[in-house]
Amino acid sequence: MNKEKAVVVISGWLDSTVLLYKIIDEWYEPYAISFNYWQKHSKELECAKKTCEYLWVNHKIIDVSFLKNLLDSSLLNDDEEIPEWDYKEENMKSTVVPSRNLIFSSIAIGYGQSIGAKIVALGVHWGDHTIYPDCREEFIDKLNEVAKISDWHYIELYCPFVNISKTDVVKIWKDLNVDFSLTWSCYKWGEKPCGKCGTCTERLEAFRDNWMEDVLDYN
Amino acid sequence: MNKEKAVVVISGWLDSTVLLYKIIDEWYEPYAISFNYWQKHSKELECAKKTCEYLWVNHKIIDVSFLKNLLDSSLLNDDEEIPEWDYKEENMKSTVVPSRNLIFSSIAIGYGQSIGAKIVALGVHWGDHTIYPDCREEFIDKLNEVAKISDWHYIELYCPFVNISKTDVVKIWKDLNVDFSLTWSCYKWGEKPCGKCGTCTERLEAFRDNWMEDVLDYN
Repeated sequence: MNKEKAVVVISGWLDSTVLLYKIIDEWYEPYAISFNYWQKHSKELECAKKTCEYLWVNHKIIDVSFLKNLLDSSLLNDDEEIPEWDYKEENMKSTVVPSRNLIFSSIAIGYGQSIGAKIVALGVHWGDHTIYPDCREEFIDKLNEVAKISDWHYIELYCPFVNISKTDVVKIWKDLNVDFSLTWSCYKWGEKPCGKCGTCTERLEAFRDNWMEDVLDYN
Repeated sequence: MNKEKAVVVISGWLDSTVLLYKIIDEWYEPYAISFNYWQKHSKELECAKKTCEYLWVNHKIIDVSFLKNLLDSSLLNDDEEIPEWDYKEENMKSTVVPSRNLIFSSIAIGYGQSIGAKIVALGVHWGDHTIYPDCREEFIDKLNEVAKISDWHYIELYCPFVNISKTDVVKIWKDLNVDFSLTWSCYKWGEKPCGKCGTCTERLEAFRDNWMEDVLDYN
């Protein structure tokens, strides 16, 4: 039986990397896609690339560098500091890149329609909800309705983590034998993750809640 | 009173150019945005630029050249011929760029949210419905629901031509005193429009139905 094609948006972070393993496990033929927008945390792209090479997965890195000058966010702006220590709403709001997930998903949808894929898989997870409006379940549901009718080729979104915490994603991760040394979860550029920013804090909590130690070496 | 900001997606074609005039007439402060994806009809971008200069409107041309290799369409593929003479479904289907309007709208939405705009205006019109799924009213309605919740900043789509034929767009055009020498409506690259492709045929019909002569010089 021929495998169905699945476009997987992979950032190189924990969640989307686990998702890629899951898609392969579910017997899809994956087409991974990543986005380079000169984000401060572009170390993540190296991780995405290495994971795809390791898994022998077709991988495209799309240059969307225009976003840096078009969208407003501390993640893109060189003069603005990334907030530390806390992944709470007010603290992290400056890291929102307006409609980033909408833009990346739209490109992935067009790509999927062009290659005749059955689904576009996105690694959005429950922890993103508070801060990032375009990662909420309500948003994903509405975007799915858009995806279904945006081309002659029918396609659907697949977001299995949308109601799962990062702690639970790490649980699945263990089962799938993910090489978690090839993932990144830090908002700051650096050879090693900072261990202080909101997303480092969130990752470390997820490991701790699973009684695991993170293999990454922190600053 | 301060004017509200409006992002206007301008292709340089007839419909979106009329839309820009209409947005100014409705007392918005327009921010025009165009997309360069090395389309065969990139003559349109020159037209968009000239119209924005003529109207003293802030204009960004976004490089989305990655689409050429990512999406499948006779509009992008150098080896494929653009169909001639007829704007009917089967004939024009090869010109569909999967989810092009979804992708461009998403970028415009993110831009609008970043500058605090009230609306994103799109020039989709009734004639596009049959062939381009992502120009239909049903699609626009669903995308509008997505736009409203995709960021902390609330924004809406504005598509006043979605149920209007090109013939009616030309009627409005006359009232707004649009410089229609600065518009393009041909799917083929060339110094002059071909007068044969589906969109040239459609434009010529719209003028004829209005008892007007097109100022463009055809091949």
